[in-house]
Amino acid sequence: MRISGACWPAPRAGSPSGKAERALAARDLEPQERLDWLRLSRSESVGPVTFYALLRRFGSAAAALDALPRLSSRQGARPAVAMSRRDAESELAAIDRLGGRLVCWGEPLYPSALASVDDAPPVLTVLGLAGLILAPMVAVVGARNASANGRRLARELAAGLGEAGIVVVSGLARGIDAAAHIGALETGSVAVVAGGVDIVYPEENRGLHEALARDGAILAEMPLGTEPLARHFPRRNRIISGLALGIVVVEAAAKSGSLITARYALEQGREVFAVPGSPLDPRSRGANDLLRNGATLTETAADILAQLGPLLQGRPPIREIAPAQSRPPLVPAAPARAAMPAMPAASAPVSEDAALDLIIEKLSPTPVAVDELVRQCQLSAAAVATLLLELELAGRVERHPGNLVSLR
Amino acid sequence: MRISGACWPAPRAGSPSGKAERALAARDLEPQERLDWLRLSRSESVGPVTFYALLRRFGSAAAALDALPRLSSRQGARPAVAMSRRDAESELAAIDRLGGRLVCWGEPLYPSALASVDDAPPVLTVLGLAGLILAPMVAVVGARNASANGRRLARELAAGLGEAGIVVVSGLARGIDAAAHIGALETGSVAVVAGGVDIVYPEENRGLHEALARDGAILAEMPLGTEPLARHFPRRNRIISGLALGIVVVEAAAKSGSLITARYALEQGREVFAVPGSPLDPRSRGANDLLRNGATLTETAADILAQLGPLLQGRPPIREIAPAQSRPPLVPAAPARAAMPAMPAASAPVSEDAALDLIIEKLSPTPVAVDELVRQCQLSAAAVATLLLELELAGRVERHPGNLVSLR
Repeated sequence: MRISGACWPAPRAGSPSGKAERALAARDLEPQERLDWLRLSRSESVGPVTFYALLRRFGSAAAALDALPRLSSRQGARPAVAMSRRDAESELAAIDRLGGRLVCWGEPLYPSALASVDDAPPVLTVLGLAGLILAPMVAVVGARNASANGRRLARELAAGLGEAGIVVVSGLARGIDAAAHIGALETGSVAVVAGGVDIVYPEENRGLHEALARDGAILAEMPLGTEPLARHFPRRNRIISGLALGIVVVEAAAKSGSLITARYALEQGREVFAVPGSPLDPRSRGANDLLRNGATLTETAADILAQLGPLLQGRPPIREIAPAQSRPPLVPAAPARAAMPAMPAASAPVSEDAALDLIIEKLSPTPVAVDELVRQCQLSAAAVATLLLELELAGRVERHPGNLVSLR
Repeated sequence: MRISGACWPAPRAGSPSGKAERALAARDLEPQERLDWLRLSRSESVGPVTFYALLRRFGSAAAALDALPRLSSRQGARPAVAMSRRDAESELAAIDRLGGRLVCWGEPLYPSALASVDDAPPVLTVLGLAGLILAPMVAVVGARNASANGRRLARELAAGLGEAGIVVVSGLARGIDAAAHIGALETGSVAVVAGGVDIVYPEENRGLHEALARDGAILAEMPLGTEPLARHFPRRNRIISGLALGIVVVEAAAKSGSLITARYALEQGREVFAVPGSPLDPRSRGANDLLRNGATLTETAADILAQLGPLLQGRPPIREIAPAQSRPPLVPAAPARAAMPAMPAASAPVSEDAALDLIIEKLSPTPVAVDELVRQCQLSAAAVATLLLELELAGRVERHPGNLVSLR
């Protein structure tokens, strides 16, 4: 069974509402589909944006997997290697043994706030009380080398949010993150880790990791067994802010990871809250900077609830809201295949090679909007999308949030 | 010699610019005028608003002093007692002996920012380097029970402002005020005290008081020898904010005096700055509340300078700016006497007694705008102004900032 191409992130504008509603109706994937989603999402050169582009183009993960070697080698590159069926089966079995589960974009268990984000992870691994990730969440993040006062504030804020029925999400780091998880453990605490859900990091949080896997939830984009690397943290931070209605920054130095999370939050249209601190404490610098730039000053959970009130009451589930606008034009939903973009050879007024040369000529290491590329090349949006997909899979083009592309 | 009625606070609107310029040209008062100003300003029932109303009505302090007993007893009250010539002479002599001087509104030495305030003190006593009070000023105020960190911040902010050529004004209280004065002592430090300039309060600031009287300046609205009373402090705070382009609040508890100063600052159109602090420290509550309500977050003097920059560069001296709009209608400047409001008996269509009954009927203990009163009574603005003046002098009506009046 195949699912409709418009099930995955697509722009709000241009999606006829009837079709969009049908397309966004959530359902669990069949076991075979889930395996294909996992394989495709773990394939070489396939990040979230490419993943959804392939689904739109081929209508299903299975068809995209079939096309992957051919498509990626068209630009002269070595064919991209897909995750093997055996490896995927073994990852799913391992998740199962841990008592976790794999959640795919669009499934009922996929957090709706995150689903609306530009490059939402196609698959998530969840350990613990998976239902928690469907509740409205607020992120509480901050410094690893937090002061005792900072940790106390994080714990109290988290407990206060929990009392109001809000699940607290954080990154299971030392300091503020750990304090926030502890404060919300009884009411709902969700950790997003940079590595696999089964990897304890840092070691001092082992007890908390176990408590969350039992009484809270642990979420990861990366496969089981992945040790967290520096480059994983920004992606992890993007998921934290993506899950949340708003993020609260407690004690963050200038240029710290928490500020990156705050920037993602702003890009994702989330509320940003910051706890003020003395200018004499360098750990307050980041939060004070956020306040200077318009973050909501936060002393207690009441400050957060007052600001989020309108979002919490009478707010439609985020799943019903069409995804962000900065995506490639929507391919109409059904019938799935017929509506897929035609191959450039059939629709573009120039030859495929000429079109490809044109696109490469217009690209540079500086990211450019795909829309702008379409305008400059005077090709159809569908033709440009298809050629960009091939260039991506061949590793020649890099995707950036906001529907931007650059030459590698 | 008489000076023009429009020399004292009057509204921006309705003042023909040629006349206004002439009227606002500052000059020193003659010795006799100065004595009369002092006598009138220290007379019973004569606050700043009444003082300026009398000057507008009678054209000079001498004429107002002549009229005072008759005018104040018209409503059946005991005639208001004016300060005696002997007492005024002895106050001026005492100020002279201290090396201080009396500065009257509109004189070249009267601070121009303060001159534009609704109920600016008609006379000020200044001790020390009087020239300092003509420089652009920023107020640094805060908690008496300040923390060591708060005092350090106040000192550093004051020093940083001083380096930028800004004179720092504060209230010579314990804690933040004292630290601010110390930080700016070398570059320019002005204290506004609630009592007389010769009264040391609190005793622990005796050394600082002496240093300011020598290397800075001390300012007071009250006569020499006045012990500061609780009711003097809000008026003192109004002068501090009135003198300044902006005020910085460092450590202020909720509902503290510093917040009253901040409220005056907002009413006077001054910038409000606040230094953030931990929500766990009750001394941060007030400053954090100000930040929540739009104050500029301040960590260093650079934050203040960045915000005040446009005000400091190419800004016309405040003396040239017409005073606030919330004042009774301007009486044209010259010829002074002819343009004064006519007495109601001559101009109002109803008898003076009937008009008075009408006004009293419309008044209540809840302050009401004079403009509204004029509308409701269907009397001329001049008639209402004159009758209100009589009621004030008889102690039956109270004036409030913003051109509001209430029944006592």
